[in-house]
Amino acid sequence: MPISFARRMNLLRRSEIREILKLTQKKEMISFAGGLPAPELFPVEKMKKIAVSILEEQGNEALQYSTTEGYEPLREKIAERMNRKFQTTVRKEHILITCGSQQALDFSGKLFLDEDDIVLCESPTYLAAISAFNAYAPKFIAVKTDDEGMILEELEKVLTSQKRIKLIYVIPDFQNPTGKTWSLKRRVAFMALVSKYEIPIIEDNPYGELRFEHKILPSLKSMDTKGLVIFTSTFSKTFCPGLRIGWIAAEPELFERYVRIKQGADLCTSIRNQMEIAKFIDVYDFESHIGKLVELYRSRRDVMIEMLQATLPEGVTFTHPEGGLFLWLELPKQMKAIQLLEDCLENNVAFIPGDSFFPNGGVTNTLRLNYSNMPEEKIREGIRRLSKAIKEYSAR
Amino acid sequence: MPISFARRMNLLRRSEIREILKLTQKKEMISFAGGLPAPELFPVEKMKKIAVSILEEQGNEALQYSTTEGYEPLREKIAERMNRKFQTTVRKEHILITCGSQQALDFSGKLFLDEDDIVLCESPTYLAAISAFNAYAPKFIAVKTDDEGMILEELEKVLTSQKRIKLIYVIPDFQNPTGKTWSLKRRVAFMALVSKYEIPIIEDNPYGELRFEHKILPSLKSMDTKGLVIFTSTFSKTFCPGLRIGWIAAEPELFERYVRIKQGADLCTSIRNQMEIAKFIDVYDFESHIGKLVELYRSRRDVMIEMLQATLPEGVTFTHPEGGLFLWLELPKQMKAIQLLEDCLENNVAFIPGDSFFPNGGVTNTLRLNYSNMPEEKIREGIRRLSKAIKEYSAR
Repeated sequence: MPISFARRMNLLRRSEIREILKLTQKKEMISFAGGLPAPELFPVEKMKKIAVSILEEQGNEALQYSTTEGYEPLREKIAERMNRKFQTTVRKEHILITCGSQQALDFSGKLFLDEDDIVLCESPTYLAAISAFNAYAPKFIAVKTDDEGMILEELEKVLTSQKRIKLIYVIPDFQNPTGKTWSLKRRVAFMALVSKYEIPIIEDNPYGELRFEHKILPSLKSMDTKGLVIFTSTFSKTFCPGLRIGWIAAEPELFERYVRIKQGADLCTSIRNQMEIAKFIDVYDFESHIGKLVELYRSRRDVMIEMLQATLPEGVTFTHPEGGLFLWLELPKQMKAIQLLEDCLENNVAFIPGDSFFPNGGVTNTLRLNYSNMPEEKIREGIRRLSKAIKEYSAR
Repeated sequence: MPISFARRMNLLRRSEIREILKLTQKKEMISFAGGLPAPELFPVEKMKKIAVSILEEQGNEALQYSTTEGYEPLREKIAERMNRKFQTTVRKEHILITCGSQQALDFSGKLFLDEDDIVLCESPTYLAAISAFNAYAPKFIAVKTDDEGMILEELEKVLTSQKRIKLIYVIPDFQNPTGKTWSLKRRVAFMALVSKYEIPIIEDNPYGELRFEHKILPSLKSMDTKGLVIFTSTFSKTFCPGLRIGWIAAEPELFERYVRIKQGADLCTSIRNQMEIAKFIDVYDFESHIGKLVELYRSRRDVMIEMLQATLPEGVTFTHPEGGLFLWLELPKQMKAIQLLEDCLENNVAFIPGDSFFPNGGVTNTLRLNYSNMPEEKIREGIRRLSKAIKEYSAR
């Protein structure tokens, strides 16, 4: 008799992105596949000073077990920054520190989902959220989404016809994978609609502070009158993913349950790493650090868009993200992104086919491009190779 | 309609230890309740040097995302150390880095357990393993356990009569909570028995290197001929819990599935923290660091045992651990540890009642004492207070 696994393991496949990323580790590869921040902007020198001063001033505390909720001064700073940037009114009591915001997604699945419960999400949606939730074996309904956000007529149809909806998962700011941002009008109407139902909403916002133009729009959490919105974000995009510090902001009834889940899952997050970020915010100008990221990513986005406009054949469209790390490209219907990827890998340029961002499949002609991790010259050359491959494919 | 949570949330209660620990934060409290290592032995000065050199030499890599499996040089060192200490024959390919070994327990629940599946464990067993597994809503069968380990006649009865056993969870070395260690003979017989069934075994071994006398016994993993034993341990007890670095050692078929689970759960563990431990092992004498811990904890155990022998009334028994962090005390049957705790807290001494280490309850006259975290003078005074409270309780 072979070892018997939990049923959920049938749903947990190896991440396709991860498999593609392995192929992209060749030196000569130009990769738009990952979602990595630009390492040249990691504040390495400053982190050296911070690391030493934390160990000097609070060494014993920094290396010991800590509370499940997280390091209070960091929770306080996160609340203050959220309120200033996303117009929320949260306090440190609402903030739970997690190991990156991926952990917040896993915990949300654990908190809400029994087998065959329904998760509503955008179409497409974030691939790794699908993996996180799949561990709890739900069904997904991907609600049609346009340039302003989820289409509310479609959403309402689902809300009124389905009984087991347990969770709505959305990424209103510079969505992964499309780079699109919900309009203010859509946000307001969305919250008005969903507030009639007592369904929790995960507002996943890892990229919101990386806005290249215009002002940050009010978050869904800022319009939440019923305590339904669970806001999650991370320092992985604005600071350093290697520290693995993200957070959940949730109302007390939810917060207290997330704490119980974290107790069972990993007891606590590295307090030393939390102390370092809190100290960095105290000692250095965090906003100017983010300013540098915004400047760099904006110029990389500009170069990518300029090159796409100059080189793509007709019939291929793409998004114009106002921030974040990704843009989204749509090929003519008859073309398969997975086929194109094979051609591209031969020519040393990589991307992620959009297929796996649709939880129920069915779309095969889209792809995600990351612009944060490659220098401008490589973006130029990479897009030249991509466009050439598209033209050759379409000529076949 | 209120928010609807997953069914598992009915099983996830707040940790009782955690609630008691909150009460013990008063300055005047002598606490044997936690399970904290002695912070005075954290190698703070050395960590300062390590932190700086990692950021100097590999800063960009240390602060970036990393592979889900973990930092290769650390995985290699872990495999080498395990083979040397626990007589295993693992390689780095078997080692998955986790956020503490608590995460290994959570992942094991996720990998094996559907609702109402059965977990076999010792009686008593580790409280936080119960919490971790409870997230997957299993039933527990606590198999009777004596001074040499699980009683095999009892285990066999369960193995032959129950269909849905998915997992056997044991802590053969200096068990939490009892401090007991399985005999070599029992280990061999246990492996011979369970190898007839294809049931995975979690060998949880966070304390094994903290042995005060005699030699480390061969691990269950070293006797595993069928790839059923999943060994888990951590640097939290031998180094610093604040870094949150633990690991799983498992055969390829299991390893590959744990990796998928980690991908969905939190992508990866802080690579900077992993690099620091690998570097510490390279640059400093890790065995002599462990030697210092052993010496300190041994003398604290000795003081605690000496005081218990000198002050306890008749009818109270306790274990003599050969290593680890805990010993276990049994009151006369009619006494309730929870009642005793109330008396003790008034007298500023704390412990954990044993009740919650029995997954199905029913035992109320036991308690766990930690000796690693209190200096000798406080151990003397604390045990005096404890014994006094026991005598007063028994006189009522």
